[in-house]
Amino acid sequence: MNAAALRAQYAVLDSTAYLNAGTCGPLPAAALRAGAVAGQAASEHGRGTEYFEEMLWVRERLRAAYAGVIGGRSEEVALTTSTSDGMARVLSGLGLRRGDEVLTADDEHPGLYGPLSAARAFGIDVRTVPLAEIADAVSPRTRLVACSHVSWTSGALAPAALASLGEDVPVLLDGAQSAGAIPVDVTALGCAFYAGAGQKWLCGPVGTGLLWIAPSWRERLAVITPAYLNLSEPGTGLDAEPWPDARAFDAPAIPYEAMVAALTAHDVLAVVGWSAVHARATGMAAALAERLRSTGRAVAPRGDSTLVSWEEPDPNAAVARLAREGVTIRSLPQTPYVRASVGAWNDESDLERLLEAL
Amino acid sequence: MNAAALRAQYAVLDSTAYLNAGTCGPLPAAALRAGAVAGQAASEHGRGTEYFEEMLWVRERLRAAYAGVIGGRSEEVALTTSTSDGMARVLSGLGLRRGDEVLTADDEHPGLYGPLSAARAFGIDVRTVPLAEIADAVSPRTRLVACSHVSWTSGALAPAALASLGEDVPVLLDGAQSAGAIPVDVTALGCAFYAGAGQKWLCGPVGTGLLWIAPSWRERLAVITPAYLNLSEPGTGLDAEPWPDARAFDAPAIPYEAMVAALTAHDVLAVVGWSAVHARATGMAAALAERLRSTGRAVAPRGDSTLVSWEEPDPNAAVARLAREGVTIRSLPQTPYVRASVGAWNDESDLERLLEAL
Repeated sequence: MNAAALRAQYAVLDSTAYLNAGTCGPLPAAALRAGAVAGQAASEHGRGTEYFEEMLWVRERLRAAYAGVIGGRSEEVALTTSTSDGMARVLSGLGLRRGDEVLTADDEHPGLYGPLSAARAFGIDVRTVPLAEIADAVSPRTRLVACSHVSWTSGALAPAALASLGEDVPVLLDGAQSAGAIPVDVTALGCAFYAGAGQKWLCGPVGTGLLWIAPSWRERLAVITPAYLNLSEPGTGLDAEPWPDARAFDAPAIPYEAMVAALTAHDVLAVVGWSAVHARATGMAAALAERLRSTGRAVAPRGDSTLVSWEEPDPNAAVARLAREGVTIRSLPQTPYVRASVGAWNDESDLERLLEAL
Repeated sequence: MNAAALRAQYAVLDSTAYLNAGTCGPLPAAALRAGAVAGQAASEHGRGTEYFEEMLWVRERLRAAYAGVIGGRSEEVALTTSTSDGMARVLSGLGLRRGDEVLTADDEHPGLYGPLSAARAFGIDVRTVPLAEIADAVSPRTRLVACSHVSWTSGALAPAALASLGEDVPVLLDGAQSAGAIPVDVTALGCAFYAGAGQKWLCGPVGTGLLWIAPSWRERLAVITPAYLNLSEPGTGLDAEPWPDARAFDAPAIPYEAMVAALTAHDVLAVVGWSAVHARATGMAAALAERLRSTGRAVAPRGDSTLVSWEEPDPNAAVARLAREGVTIRSLPQTPYVRASVGAWNDESDLERLLEAL
């Protein structure tokens, strides 16, 4: 791959060692331009039937693109506004009852704990264990396992043993730190549901995301709040039925211009090739972890991911100090860690700046 | 007001008699520019803590702006992705049970019938009556009245008698054709919930909207699917609680650039003054209705709104013919009508073009 050409797409890298894609990826210039052109056309030609049809077409292109990122099929992918949005749709649609158990890990993101806290308020029993032990902790009462595919705090991967739980206990994976970051094959993962973000490793706008639903689970998931685009024939009034496929779980509306930008941001990476994108990012992340260890720093136990977390005596102060040096990383609340997110758009110079500023 | 200066903001009007704000309003140039500048800044400076804080600030400004449009307070307004999104949040949060009755009108939009069809699938009894009779049709089993504030097919208004139902039977108003179009005072309307759209009469991007929740109903509405921004302290994990105010019902995420555009689109109208905007639009709509009647056309019974619907022998053919003449209106499925949406941005020349093309 031509790493320099890819890097040149991201304006933030001209001035900053941007290592924060785990929060939001760098926005590529092509995505901004495409979004602006789409908005300009809407402004000049109005938003009538043609606009609506164009919007539906872009939705389907984005759906197909996101499906490709995770090894799924278009009809298995719902377009959401965020990872959390997708996970909430699963939790509310499973028909969990008082006393049912949801098993989760003990260091999940608020995007998962949020919907789980609501489930708990309805009498669902939410049990937490370390991510590494989660597959072994399943009990006869477990109705759902919900956990990270890649831990947002450490970059560790969910245990492969989750794939062998089979059909009885569905697994919902929080893919916020894996979709676009590392190779993902939802079928091989053996999960029932996989939720991902558009604004992180896929570099799209905030307010974009995906939810993959295994075909065998589609009909077991109730459509709680169908809006216009969730219905196969909205014109049939009270007889309207949700789409039989994952479109039934689409977010009610996503701005057209944002979808165009998200699709273009995806394409900037897809044309390079996902294998190359993943290999470059995970390789540089592993190298960064090694160099941090060689400076004596305690790096959090991680997997083959794009996140590198390590201890700093005062994480927030470290983040602020690095920001002044033009290096963007983040701290992780209630942990001793700061976290660097390494993407294919980064290069050695970004890692050097980080290490020097430390 | 300086009508010509307002009109000059909307590029589509340079070429088209755009009379379709009931679907999507014209996008003002200032909104496009503001959205593009926001995206450019995000691209150049990255999306770290400052971006997140800026986004939260824009959210609150948009919330305050939308609250002002409908006479509510910021803390009573949730930001949604669409009218339908807001209505679905109400229907899913009310805890309706099998056998409960929801009363609705017989010509509602799929944006309301969609969530109602799902409620029906869960055993809720959905009864339909003509909009004009809805206040009198309330029965002891009625747990919710859900109907248009302004009918999307005719432009008729919901009966004023809804305001006297009081606290026992909450009213959910579909304000898609009223927010920004006509004067709205949610308190005077006596409703418990009011859902509106950002992309219609407020001229923002698709994927924006509002839900107003009466303070007395906030605690009776369950938060089914809280995402990160719905939680008052997301960092507290499984103990996280939803915001005590309407933020608990915010859509999980709305693109930052779209919120900036929506806020600017609102401001373009707000600086003119809502009274002037409403008076000009409703006045021109009434004049159009009168002129259509004088040509012998059957205009649908309407109220003091911005929609004018009339019968055409072949509505779809009429819409297509007018489109070729540079006039944008729409047909209404399963009715004999075509519909023109008249906004303060329109002028006599638009109405003339419509009447000539007919």
